[in-house]
Order: sequence, then C-alpha cells, then structure tokens
Amino acid sequence: MSDVTFPSRVSVREVGPRDGLQNEDPISTDAKVELIDALGRTGVRRIEALSFVHPKAIPQMADADEVWEKVTRDPGIRYSALVPNLRGAERALAAGFTELEVVVSASDTHNQRNINRTTEESLAQLPSLVSAVHEAGGTLQLIVSTAWGCPYEGDVPVDRVLWVVSRGLSAGVDSLVYGDTTGMATPPRVTRLVGATRSSHPDVALGLHFHNTRGTGLANVYAALELGIDDFDASVGGLGGCPYAPGASGNIATEELVYLLEDMGIDTGIDLRAMIGVAQLAEQLVGRKLDSQVLRAGPAVR
Amino acid sequence: MSDVTFPSRVSVREVGPRDGLQNEDPISTDAKVELIDALGRTGVRRIEALSFVHPKAIPQMADADEVWEKVTRDPGIRYSALVPNLRGAERALAAGFTELEVVVSASDTHNQRNINRTTEESLAQLPSLVSAVHEAGGTLQLIVSTAWGCPYEGDVPVDRVLWVVSRGLSAGVDSLVYGDTTGMATPPRVTRLVGATRSSHPDVALGLHFHNTRGTGLANVYAALELGIDDFDASVGGLGGCPYAPGASGNIATEELVYLLEDMGIDTGIDLRAMIGVAQLAEQLVGRKLDSQVLRAGPAVR
Repeated sequence: MSDVTFPSRVSVREVGPRDGLQNEDPISTDAKVELIDALGRTGVRRIEALSFVHPKAIPQMADADEVWEKVTRDPGIRYSALVPNLRGAERALAAGFTELEVVVSASDTHNQRNINRTTEESLAQLPSLVSAVHEAGGTLQLIVSTAWGCPYEGDVPVDRVLWVVSRGLSAGVDSLVYGDTTGMATPPRVTRLVGATRSSHPDVALGLHFHNTRGTGLANVYAALELGIDDFDASVGGLGGCPYAPGASGNIATEELVYLLEDMGIDTGIDLRAMIGVAQLAEQLVGRKLDSQVLRAGPAVR
Repeated sequence: MSDVTFPSRVSVREVGPRDGLQNEDPISTDAKVELIDALGRTGVRRIEALSFVHPKAIPQMADADEVWEKVTRDPGIRYSALVPNLRGAERALAAGFTELEVVVSASDTHNQRNINRTTEESLAQLPSLVSAVHEAGGTLQLIVSTAWGCPYEGDVPVDRVLWVVSRGLSAGVDSLVYGDTTGMATPPRVTRLVGATRSSHPDVALGLHFHNTRGTGLANVYAALELGIDDFDASVGGLGGCPYAPGASGNIATEELVYLLEDMGIDTGIDLRAMIGVAQLAEQLVGRKLDSQVLRAGPAVR
C-alpha cells in the first residue's frame, strides 16, 4: 500500500556456502573457499559460511575447519556458523566464530526426521548451549524451521511457533529467524506470524528465511517489508534446491532479493551485477543449472 | 498489511494457448485443441484461446480457424482472441469470437520492433477497430504492453502509459490490461501505476498481466490484490518463456497464481491439482521443462 513505510536498509545474510552447499553434491574445499571469497567481494555484509556438524551426518561440511582456514576473511563482514549441539559449538568457537546459529523445528515430525529428536528435546539443550556460547563471548541465534508449515504435518499453528520462541528466549538466545523450510509461506501467513510475534515479543531481533519452492518467495519478502522486517536470508543463485522436492527451488536467490530491494530504493550494500557474477560462478562450481530468474534474465535493462 | 481487504474472488484469464504457445516452437493443431480442452476442465472461466494474425508473422497461429473449429467449446467459459488489426478482427468475429483484444505498446521502440508502427500509429487505428467490433456485437480490450518498462528504453513513465489509456478509452475500448512484457514490474511500480490509473479513470475495468522474468511475478500480484485488483492473466506451466531472454521465465504460471490465491482464501473456481495436471500436459506438448515452481513441487502437503 502506498501509505506503508518500507525500511530504508535491509541486512541480507548470504547462506549459499552453508545452507546452499549442504543441499548440493559435495564440492572441493577450494571451490567452497572460492565461493565464500567471491561473495565477500559483492558488498554483502553477513555470510553464513559453514556448519560444524558430524561429517557422517553431512559430508558436504566435513572440511569446515580447512575451509575456514583458507577463507580470506574480510573484517567488514560478519561470518556465522550453524551448530547442531554443544560439540559443534565448541568446534565453531575454537575456529574463531562468534556468531552461531542453531535450528529447532517447530514441527515435531520434521525435527525427528531431521535430527532424530523431538522439538522438546532440542529446546531442552538450549540453555547449556547458550551458556557455552555466551561464556566464549559469542552470540547464539535460534532458527525456527517449518515456521510456516511442515511437509509431514501440514499447517504449523502460530501458537506452536510462539511456544518454541518463548522457550528459546527464556534460554537466552540473542536473535530469532523464522525458516520457511519447504516453501509453504504465503503473504497472509507471514503477516499473521510476524504480527503475533511482535505482540508477544515486541523487541526481539527477527530475521526471515524464505524459500521459493512454490514461487511465493519474493511475495513473502514484500509482505514482510510492509511490516518493517529488515533482515532476510538468501542463497546466491538459489543454491541448494529443495531436499523435499527434487528439482524444485529452495532458498530465495540473493540476486532476486537484491533486484527487488534495489528497485524499491532499499539499500543492501550489495552490487547486483557482482552478485549475478557469483551466481554464475556457483552454477559452475556445483555443475547444474540454478533456479534463479535474475541469473537467467539479468538486470531489467541490458 | 492486516487491515487490507483482499478481493474474495479473482477472475483468472488463462493465456497459455495464445500468449504461451506463440512463444514456443509450433505444435500440432490437435495438440493445441487438446490443451484448450484440458484447460476447459480445470474450472477456469476465461481462456485467451487464439490470435488471428498473419501466418508469416506468427506461424504458431497459422491454424487458428482449424483449432477453433475443433475445440470443445464450454458455454460456461469465455474464450477470447487477440487481433492485430481490422483484418484480424474480421477473422475473429467471423469465427464466432465476441471478446477481442488488441495490444499497443506504451514504448515506441517496442511497438516499432513488435509490429513496425509507432505507438501513435497503433492508437490511430483504434477507433475504426472498436467500431467494427462493436457493430458485430463484440467487445475490444486494450492490452498496454511494456506498461512497467521496456527492454529497449528502460523505464516507461506513468504519464506515457496514461496517455495510451486515455487514447484507448476515447476510442471506446471496453476494458484495459497492463502487460509487464519483460518482467520489469515490482510492487511499488504496480502500486504507482494502478493508483495513477484509478485517479484518472476510476471506473475502468482493469486487469494485470505479469511476467516472472525476474522472480517478482507473485509479489506484484500480491501488491495488486492489496489494491483490490481482481483480474489477472496467467499461463499454465508458465508456457511461453521470455522472447527477450532465452531460458528466462515469461508469464506467471497459472498454478502458482492459483496456489497463492487459494492459500489466501480467494476463490478462482480453478481446481489446483487439475491445473497442475494441465501444466504437466503442456510440458509434454511443447517438449521442454517449464518454469513453474508449483509444477515441480506440487501443492504444499503431499
């Protein structure tokens, strides 16, 4: 609506090197380093670089320490790492990360199939995880996955998501991200969940992580911008796809997000053409055609 | 925003058989008939079936009369045809069509390259075209293409679009559609142009025709729904692609539009699973993978 005030700046977190590559066939250590370094030259200020998980669970991240040693770290960029548990957090902290993330699914069935625990069991480990991270001077973000729906259970009630959030905030997590794990969010669902969250927790730092699995990715971003959300995840080239629907899209593509925001006059600090260049690189590195419209079509006027 | 009232119903016009197939390699007459007939069983109530153009200009539509003879016409469906000029209108009327459309590009360069006339020259033929159609008891819709941008000229000023609209309405056209010919629309541009149109012409029947060439298709639909627009074009499977960017998306996919509207509780009369089935058929008929997320991923819960 014309009477809405949009944010003047948006903070984009590039998740291609972690969330993206975790859902692609494994690529070499050097290729991962090349991708992170190339992203570092686009102007993006936050990169989810790695996850510290058991190599048997996620072989794509088995060389996390080596990748991190080789990356040309830009002091102007905040790099973060995903950790599944205390052991992972210790590895991430030892490697020098200070921004850590942990994922808990709002849907029990999804949490069980993803990490073989109930949501309650995952939540129960949060206090000790927060303590360990805070003692080391770091921050821990809670990513609530299946926040807008679960591929096994269908709708996930807003109250269930808010219950996970309350437990996380009680445990002391520093910020929150809602993940649309399989692309079930639509604008009214975004408005409903963000509104309810603001009512219960007006001051929480909230980012949104959308997938484009059913084409609604940027529509959801637009609805969130209308609500003043200024923190979004995206994956260069849409790297990663959707593990639940082979051939379908996963994360929204960073260059599509930047294209939309730039046209709206919203600053991201990211150079669109440079990001399209990295999307082209990402296609070469993973050896498949990525699902990004802006990658195919380019900026509006050639 | 939560205080917006969305339309309770949306009228979807399926443009795959015309706009879609016109931008694919030619398929057989029987295949075209099969597509139109299959669409007729999805619950869609409007189908842009054909265009009556010179076969040398658009060989894909050379068999328009034969297709139309073979189609199983459903009396509950409004079929329309695109015509480039008086000769085309006469053919369409003779074939029994009563809903006709004519395209004029707001951008001179695009109009020149598309039909070898200036925008002014195209507008000048409208009064005689309208007269001929009205005398035969039909209606003529003006589709203003490049309404949100031109691949050659870049931005197209709102005033330029409104000038085309004024000329069309003076000539007596019955309704209006804005076409985002190469996917340059974004939500603020939609809000701006629709708002300006409403101010100048509060009562005009206005439909919108979006492309997803840069991923913003459904975001634009959502912004338009917030403004109360309840009339959209879409192409099953995203049939047609983008003639200006090979490999890129063209029209928004009907099943993606229906998925969004259905999740918003907005009635279209269309059965989503049936439309996904026709998208699968369309892929077979044109022999290439179509660019539709909902076609790949299916409805939210399997």
